[in-house]
Amino acid sequence: MDMLWNGWGDPAKAAPLPDSVTGLLRDLLGVKPRSTPALALEDIEPPAPTAGPAALAALAEAVGDAAHVRTDPESRIRHTRGKSTPDLLRIRAGDTSDVPQAVVLPATHEEVLAVLRACAAHGLAAVPFGGGTSVVGGLAPERGAFVALDLRRMNRLLDLDTVSRTAVLQPGLRAPEAEALLAEQGFTLGHFPQSFEWASIGGFAAARSSGQASAGYGRFDEMVLGLTLATPEGTVETGRAPRSAAGPDLRQLILGSEGAFGVITSVTVRVRPLPEARIYEGWRFASFEEGAAALRRLAQDGPRPTVLRLSDETETLIGLASPDDVGTSLGRSDAGCLAVTGYEGTPEETAHRRERAAAVLTAAGGTPLGAEPGERWAHGRFSAPYLRDALLDVGAFAETLETAAFWSRVPELYAAVRAALTDTLTRAGTPPLVMCHISHVYENGASLYFTVVSAQGEDPVAHWTPAKHAANEAVLAAGGTISHHHGVGTDHRDWYVREAGELAVEALRAVKRRLDPDGLLNPGVLLPTD
Amino acid sequence: MDMLWNGWGDPAKAAPLPDSVTGLLRDLLGVKPRSTPALALEDIEPPAPTAGPAALAALAEAVGDAAHVRTDPESRIRHTRGKSTPDLLRIRAGDTSDVPQAVVLPATHEEVLAVLRACAAHGLAAVPFGGGTSVVGGLAPERGAFVALDLRRMNRLLDLDTVSRTAVLQPGLRAPEAEALLAEQGFTLGHFPQSFEWASIGGFAAARSSGQASAGYGRFDEMVLGLTLATPEGTVETGRAPRSAAGPDLRQLILGSEGAFGVITSVTVRVRPLPEARIYEGWRFASFEEGAAALRRLAQDGPRPTVLRLSDETETLIGLASPDDVGTSLGRSDAGCLAVTGYEGTPEETAHRRERAAAVLTAAGGTPLGAEPGERWAHGRFSAPYLRDALLDVGAFAETLETAAFWSRVPELYAAVRAALTDTLTRAGTPPLVMCHISHVYENGASLYFTVVSAQGEDPVAHWTPAKHAANEAVLAAGGTISHHHGVGTDHRDWYVREAGELAVEALRAVKRRLDPDGLLNPGVLLPTD
Repeated sequence: MDMLWNGWGDPAKAAPLPDSVTGLLRDLLGVKPRSTPALALEDIEPPAPTAGPAALAALAEAVGDAAHVRTDPESRIRHTRGKSTPDLLRIRAGDTSDVPQAVVLPATHEEVLAVLRACAAHGLAAVPFGGGTSVVGGLAPERGAFVALDLRRMNRLLDLDTVSRTAVLQPGLRAPEAEALLAEQGFTLGHFPQSFEWASIGGFAAARSSGQASAGYGRFDEMVLGLTLATPEGTVETGRAPRSAAGPDLRQLILGSEGAFGVITSVTVRVRPLPEARIYEGWRFASFEEGAAALRRLAQDGPRPTVLRLSDETETLIGLASPDDVGTSLGRSDAGCLAVTGYEGTPEETAHRRERAAAVLTAAGGTPLGAEPGERWAHGRFSAPYLRDALLDVGAFAETLETAAFWSRVPELYAAVRAALTDTLTRAGTPPLVMCHISHVYENGASLYFTVVSAQGEDPVAHWTPAKHAANEAVLAAGGTISHHHGVGTDHRDWYVREAGELAVEALRAVKRRLDPDGLLNPGVLLPTD
Repeated sequence: MDMLWNGWGDPAKAAPLPDSVTGLLRDLLGVKPRSTPALALEDIEPPAPTAGPAALAALAEAVGDAAHVRTDPESRIRHTRGKSTPDLLRIRAGDTSDVPQAVVLPATHEEVLAVLRACAAHGLAAVPFGGGTSVVGGLAPERGAFVALDLRRMNRLLDLDTVSRTAVLQPGLRAPEAEALLAEQGFTLGHFPQSFEWASIGGFAAARSSGQASAGYGRFDEMVLGLTLATPEGTVETGRAPRSAAGPDLRQLILGSEGAFGVITSVTVRVRPLPEARIYEGWRFASFEEGAAALRRLAQDGPRPTVLRLSDETETLIGLASPDDVGTSLGRSDAGCLAVTGYEGTPEETAHRRERAAAVLTAAGGTPLGAEPGERWAHGRFSAPYLRDALLDVGAFAETLETAAFWSRVPELYAAVRAALTDTLTRAGTPPLVMCHISHVYENGASLYFTVVSAQGEDPVAHWTPAKHAANEAVLAAGGTISHHHGVGTDHRDWYVREAGELAVEALRAVKRRLDPDGLLNPGVLLPTD
């Protein structure tokens, strides 16, 4: 099944905006519903490809069959940009300026190498395409004609080592497919980001994804034990041991490289036994500050839940932690801040960990709300992006952004980003609702994930851009990282260069030049072009 | 206090070989004690420096005072090579072929930058020198005149963030100094490698050290949250958050770079509260295989002890886990394999963890030996290297090497390395004793640490080299990494290149050329020179 071409997720799950949300928009933001529908697919005409028959023939030869080189408008439109709100707004309006020349579907590492050679020979750039879920402009290269290198045919579990608890996965496996293959043999990866239903293993690695159970299972980059990278200059193979002192960790050079150094063609990951027991619960804290302190206690001194999240006052009031409930509890003045804790493992270990964590949370001021809020969160955990499409249909705007910092910096970072978003959009005449949650905790810091809802401006992308830039500036000024788990893409690149520093970026560009001397891989994504 | 110039550790702790060990050498290896003493310091004359007055003046200007540029023979000899057995054998024999031109002692990041500029201007290479404890040739650059850049004056705790539990340490801090500074405020790093008494924070980072409590506190590279690097082209600063999706993890590019990319001038680490409770215990397993399976259970399913090690049958029989006891229990046929477990934390948590771990170990076939073997191990944990000097004095040879692999590969790796060492040295007429332990465990694999003892050959370094090379070949062939925690240096470099692959090494060399265009930093260490 293909994702909705101009929005999020399973087209069958698309639904109009719930009345509760319509009321919320009207009452809180003064957004009166108006019809702002997307164009129909058949009304969008991408420009004819400039890549000639020789280039297409070379690509077909690389993948062994012309059927795996697609140039039909629908295939090209479906591989145009990713799933950020600006991406959706552009494609809904029929803007095909970032359309690929063709969509190429290799089935093996060798075919990927051959595609890259064909691209080099014909002056085409190549953009690796997994689930197509980038929300940072990671699929919109900066210049030139390019092909989308769709990895969906590389969707096998290549190996499962039950002694070492490692699995070798192909990059085009979507997360549910990977989980299903592992579950057949009793294992799980434990990686459940909000994009779970659509995102791919290769994309998780390339963009350093982090899932909702990261407190227990770790970030995706912590799960990766080995990677194979196909580059225009050949193959890089990494990962002979879980840890090594043999030089810099090359895996960590490939993780986060966002297709700029090469195409990830296999990923060796750690796997764990499928949990026998699962418990999700809700907790109430009087304030975000109090709740954050409680989360910090668990992150630093344990025991560590498998899932650990905390919504701020606004997100709790709106009910965004459980998208089906948005707007239904508005007006409760005692909502406080909702935390969700989850525990997975063996029944005995899970029960014991839960009991000790509950004692810590209680001591930190938390009030247990029982299983219901936890289960509601778990039920709706992948639903929020669907809501966005309905908002875009009625003249509203919704977008998310995220960062992370050391614990001592978190309060300032939270305040600074909220202020930047609120001030910019209010000055522009569309006062926003800014919600936030902590969804990933570490001993030394935490992530902050912001959701912004406002009225659309006349030109919605141009209207949003200054707010996004102001948020980026606030992140850097307050000591945060420009992305905790969405990545850099083209949207964050200029701020990434400032965060990493010119010399470090120059070192990475030296790597790129060595692996990709023609600069054909994702030009302008992650790293500036020359 | 300075370390013994031609051996290991505190000169006051040097002692002759215990009779028990002499007997063991004679009975097991046919080594009859003969006197093979080191030359005296005053009998060693390094060649006069070729660096002229202009170069020395530039270095003095860089560090602000000629007193911080040392050219006296003792200073130069003390900065000649590291502490591998070949290093000791060479310096004991008066071989000063790798002596630095001068020892330069900068006190700040800016002075390090200035020293690097002075080196570039005067055609000198620069070798960062922390504790001087490299055992892989990391302090012996491949060619040319060089200065030792001794970081001992950079020995401050710059910052302690008790909320985030992070500390900023200067690179010249030796581990006991760092622990003392942190302990004053109730914290510990928890990094206790065998080189603990002498090795430095910068060296731990540059060479990816791993300590004896790695099961609980993690490897050093897992503790590092930020690094500052001084390079000939300027400064790289990394680490704005515990984790980030903003590109490749630049920290992991600097960790393990062994001075080839720059000089680490500060390290931000995670710290933890000083443990209130400590328990160390011994366990007996019937075989190395059975014990390894038990360790794997704990590493994969928990609970994870803070210290977790297992000696093989030979190491157990010899008693090397507790160097003071070596040889004393020889002849016990029921020794089996000794495991040591340690638990640190709050009293309640420690007791609970210990209880659950003990149940796992018992179910896996372990027999509890009580606290005594654990305490003896803890008491002697830094002593083994002292024994080596006494062995070298009496015509014996002792060296260590280490590797790691995924669990399913560990048995083959163990057998292959043992066979390579035993066969090579036996064919050379000096049948060795080869001992091994697992000292670092992960969910997906473990390290193997080998100790080799034999008679010295006529030319001890030349005699050992084929055995070391055979072990390196065995490591690669059996799927291990060329080093789990000693690093690459010059000794492992050729095997490292094969492990990482030419293209990956070329990518790292591209980084080096960008940061160090004149190739003055540790030439030939880690990466081949042009």
